[in-house]
Amino acid sequence: MNTFGTLLRVHIFGESHGEKIGIIIDGIPAGLIIDYQQLLSDITRRKSGEKGTTPRIEDDVPQIVSGVFNNITTGAPLTIIFDNHNTQSKDYSNLITHPRPGHADFTGKQKFNGYNDYRGGGHFSGRITLPLVVAGTIAKTVIPDIKITAKITMIGGKSYETKDEVIDYCITHHDSVGAIIECSVENMPIGLGEPFFNSLESLISHAIFSIPGIRGIEFGSGFESAGQWGSEHNDCIMSTAGKTKTNHAGGINGGISNGNELVFRIAVKPTSSIGLAQNTFNFSTQKIEPLEIKGRHDICFALRVPVIVEALTAIVLADLTLQHNSR
Amino acid sequence: MNTFGTLLRVHIFGESHGEKIGIIIDGIPAGLIIDYQQLLSDITRRKSGEKGTTPRIEDDVPQIVSGVFNNITTGAPLTIIFDNHNTQSKDYSNLITHPRPGHADFTGKQKFNGYNDYRGGGHFSGRITLPLVVAGTIAKTVIPDIKITAKITMIGGKSYETKDEVIDYCITHHDSVGAIIECSVENMPIGLGEPFFNSLESLISHAIFSIPGIRGIEFGSGFESAGQWGSEHNDCIMSTAGKTKTNHAGGINGGISNGNELVFRIAVKPTSSIGLAQNTFNFSTQKIEPLEIKGRHDICFALRVPVIVEALTAIVLADLTLQHNSR
Amino acid sequence: MNTFGTLLRVHIFGESHGEKIGIIIDGIPAGLIIDYQQLLSDITRRKSGEKGTTPRIEDDVPQIVSGVFNNITTGAPLTIIFDNHNTQSKDYSNLITHPRPGHADFTGKQKFNGYNDYRGGGHFSGRITLPLVVAGTIAKTVIPDIKITAKITMIGGKSYETKDEVIDYCITHHDSVGAIIECSVENMPIGLGEPFFNSLESLISHAIFSIPGIRGIEFGSGFESAGQWGSEHNDCIMSTAGKTKTNHAGGINGGISNGNELVFRIAVKPTSSIGLAQNTFNFSTQKIEPLEIKGRHDICFALRVPVIVEALTAIVLADLTLQHNSR
Amino acid sequence: MNTFGTLLRVHIFGESHGEKIGIIIDGIPAGLIIDYQQLLSDITRRKSGEKGTTPRIEDDVPQIVSGVFNNITTGAPLTIIFDNHNTQSKDYSNLITHPRPGHADFTGKQKFNGYNDYRGGGHFSGRITLPLVVAGTIAKTVIPDIKITAKITMIGGKSYETKDEVIDYCITHHDSVGAIIECSVENMPIGLGEPFFNSLESLISHAIFSIPGIRGIEFGSGFESAGQWGSEHNDCIMSTAGKTKTNHAGGINGGISNGNELVFRIAVKPTSSIGLAQNTFNFSTQKIEPLEIKGRHDICFALRVPVIVEALTAIVLADLTLQHNSR
Repeated sequence: MNTFGTLLRVHIFGESHGEKIGIIIDGIPAGLIIDYQQLLSDITRRKSGEKGTTPRIEDDVPQIVSGVFNNITTGAPLTIIFDNHNTQSKDYSNLITHPRPGHADFTGKQKFNGYNDYRGGGHFSGRITLPLVVAGTIAKTVIPDIKITAKITMIGGKSYETKDEVIDYCITHHDSVGAIIECSVENMPIGLGEPFFNSLESLISHAIFSIPGIRGIEFGSGFESAGQWGSEHNDCIMSTAGKTKTNHAGGINGGISNGNELVFRIAVKPTSSIGLAQNTFNFSTQKIEPLEIKGRHDICFALRVPVIVEALTAIVLADLTLQHNSR
Repeated sequence: MNTFGTLLRVHIFGESHGEKIGIIIDGIPAGLIIDYQQLLSDITRRKSGEKGTTPRIEDDVPQIVSGVFNNITTGAPLTIIFDNHNTQSKDYSNLITHPRPGHADFTGKQKFNGYNDYRGGGHFSGRITLPLVVAGTIAKTVIPDIKITAKITMIGGKSYETKDEVIDYCITHHDSVGAIIECSVENMPIGLGEPFFNSLESLISHAIFSIPGIRGIEFGSGFESAGQWGSEHNDCIMSTAGKTKTNHAGGINGGISNGNELVFRIAVKPTSSIGLAQNTFNFSTQKIEPLEIKGRHDICFALRVPVIVEALTAIVLADLTLQHNSR
Repeated sequence: MNTFGTLLRVHIFGESHGEKIGIIIDGIPAGLIIDYQQLLSDITRRKSGEKGTTPRIEDDVPQIVSGVFNNITTGAPLTIIFDNHNTQSKDYSNLITHPRPGHADFTGKQKFNGYNDYRGGGHFSGRITLPLVVAGTIAKTVIPDIKITAKITMIGGKSYETKDEVIDYCITHHDSVGAIIECSVENMPIGLGEPFFNSLESLISHAIFSIPGIRGIEFGSGFESAGQWGSEHNDCIMSTAGKTKTNHAGGINGGISNGNELVFRIAVKPTSSIGLAQNTFNFSTQKIEPLEIKGRHDICFALRVPVIVEALTAIVLADLTLQHNSR
Repeated sequence: MNTFGTLLRVHIFGESHGEKIGIIIDGIPAGLIIDYQQLLSDITRRKSGEKGTTPRIEDDVPQIVSGVFNNITTGAPLTIIFDNHNTQSKDYSNLITHPRPGHADFTGKQKFNGYNDYRGGGHFSGRITLPLVVAGTIAKTVIPDIKITAKITMIGGKSYETKDEVIDYCITHHDSVGAIIECSVENMPIGLGEPFFNSLESLISHAIFSIPGIRGIEFGSGFESAGQWGSEHNDCIMSTAGKTKTNHAGGINGGISNGNELVFRIAVKPTSSIGLAQNTFNFSTQKIEPLEIKGRHDICFALRVPVIVEALTAIVLADLTLQHNSR
């Protein structure tokens, strides 16, 4: 179930402290040029370094081990692998008995009967989003005319401009914070998506909720729509190209792109791991006890998410474009 | 692409004004008793009749034509068919050249090169949600201990208690209105869902956005999470069963159910078809002109949606339960 | 699991003595004209009537209940339904305790915990191939240039010319007989199929073994190849179009069509139901006892299979053609 | 399309002369112990070395880079990687213009518009079966009671005992030869497989034809069945466990395992690459000209195939067992 897509399919693998993480991109058309500069640029956008992100530094060098010949895709499965170097050998085993609140320590253990690799979150780690970013960069080459842009619009409930204050507050209080990310897509073709199960909203939300820590998604006017009248919400069509006066629909009607800008927003929760001690159940002592999480983590991991959102959006749109071409 | 599910799969078909609509439910275990009273009860919940819903009356009698023998599921594909009786033969062809704003008239025509059945919305019609409701009722028998409840909490931006006022306003102004629906699931087992692509949020949002007219979905504290601190958002675990003090996570950690109540909310847009004339592009005259939509429609189709939300949730949870059993 | 295909997908349902049988064809492109004459012609080819086939006469009138508007496909799921009229109400319940050798009576009961519809073979019945035939006829319109022809080449181990003698022998001896069918496809494009899992042989064999009673399939020189030298087996390429001098490969290299005639042969077992009493285990008496199968059955059901083979081949090739177009 | 399976899914990647080849096994249950000795033993069975096989020697050391922790499966995707060391840097580019008969040189170039990695067969190489063997070994741990055995029964049309003579003939004549492999499965449970599309025969044949160079498959009495009478072919049931007197059905009725031995045979073609010069079309000179294939190849690659057949059979049966458990 670590697979997504119909004609363009991605398969992910790896654990936070395992030997390697990676992705197979299957169904990628032959003849696309790999732009390593763009790969590295997108990897850098995801990387830690910005104020508010974790100091775990990985070199994150992508190794393309199949599917590319003379720097061009061959049509065979394209596999990208990353080595995990910076895996501190400290003991995570206390998390087995004293699981972190907000994390998958408890559910992972229950689901996999205690056999899951718990070190650093194991397969649940946000580190697995790194291969997704690279897959997204490659997917973008399938749809060169489509322009996808995601950015943080709010942090801690305030406008993005106040970011540094919010981060400083977290540093002082050993706390973390959530954010809102908006993604917009220009030059959308008309006709991507299907009625019902493969609606554009269904596929994008499916992909986006694969990112750990997402709490909500809304398209166009989103939750505001629920408070609107029909006369207010309906988007008047203005031209033969289908351009609309407003864009409450977020660029989608009946599950299908209408040629206007695709717009959606997502809510990212605050990082679960915080410096503050938190009360939570200790399965060993059978008591609620304070847990101190060692190591340093992102104060606001949302800062690293926009490029991941773009990547998943690109994967969905590239797959739908291939499907569209088939008819 | 009119298919959803892995081990329990539903396949839908039909058009608003076609001869029949229906659904195949494949992968349903053998030996489940069909409760016709429950089927009819759920169909009635979806049916028009309540103030604010359309007066198109269909008898909506479900015909189970395969997969059931002596009132018990056989394990073969279970097929349910409904006849369309109340298909007014009036002319919808003006919608081809003067598409309704907010509807799929334009995108449907573009995607299917003008061959789509445009009558009454064709395959895009909300009528196709009727077979989904019945599939949901049957899916619930796979997970008899799980209790799914969806209800409207807000309408037109106000609390549900003011519903009649809001509907009356719409009647007077020939307008329509949106709503918020909350779905909660009790007696959730631990361990449904997967990390990443088949996260519980991914699957539920995929299913829910299949319902025409949904603009957003949020889990637990949802969009509010984006404004919270980690210390505020994290849910303290209280017991060996994993019960948490708060439920900001909506019952899910790392894509996997944690045994607490599963909670999500969705935003339903106002009905697109309204009595008021609306300006929109006329492809025949190449001008923006007022469009009057004939016939009567739901003022607030969200009133009919809770049972559909329950059905899709049941389909997801039944499928995941079967997958869980496989290990 | 009653589904086949990637972009063109068929979903079957129904039982031999249930109310209706049918098929959804999903992913069929919009704009194809339905040729009812061709549908009826292919249905007739599958129908009983020829010497050696069962006298169960069904009118087999296909009802297209969705996905077609003004006789043209709309791009929405195309559903075809057949009523079962000629379901004799005789008692099949003895087969529960005294299962027919060669039939699925025993495995069906075991797999579905005794809840399967055992009447006339239930969902295991060859009658379910009727909707497949119609789906194949429609799939052929997706690939109008490709010409698929299946015919019986041997019956009872002898050449097809001796058919009547072989059938007469069976009539006299209350027995049944098997046959070989050869399918050849002209005007094959180059490039259908994939290396490994979606090889053309994998997909065709997957589809063909869906037909009840197939015991083997071979491509090109097939089992003879195992006794050949490489110098004998390799097909010399003759032209830029890739035409080969011989066709030991059956038109496929590396899982991909090479532009030569696609050729495969299948072995069809003799009909399991025969007039002769057969010894087999009676679960009620716990003894091996003679079983007399009432009613009349095909002496050589293989006579009805060529059009089904063509249909499944068309479904595979139409799906692969759509996939090919996507790149 | 380099994916196979429903609950247990394998995803392959790599090229003959690329950096790495490998496989992801997804859906493998948590808690299975990895038996490295068994892995190496099965790898050795597939390896070259026996008389008649290629002298390309790879160390073939499997690197498990995800999904295993403390030597036990975690339930996360299990990834196995092999390095390609022994990739001779000789020039394969003449194969672009003078494609080898019987190989995928021509079809691969056509399908992938000339972008395929042609070195050593690229992604079409039989080398990709190495990861499949390892996946099979691991799949066998899911079904520890089932015993799968494949072996060569005929070579060059003669009994296996004459193997050395046949190989010597090939060495002398710079030729290659085909073979028949029989696979039998003991301790089969009743109930694996489905009617129609997911019949046990459909799934096994789909998997088996993924192996390059297979020309045919037959179950039970196979092609002989086509020449049998029903009274001869039907297998008399002997006991409550469903054991049959004969096994013409090869252990399957109605697509479902009946508890008897599963038996099938496959025809493997002679190796395409032979020492003898072969006439075939030269796209550069536009003439039919002799082609000499450099390097040394398997004289009878079928000798390496039995363990691959076992592996694919194990993958199918493990997947079906997980599906069976779900109900």
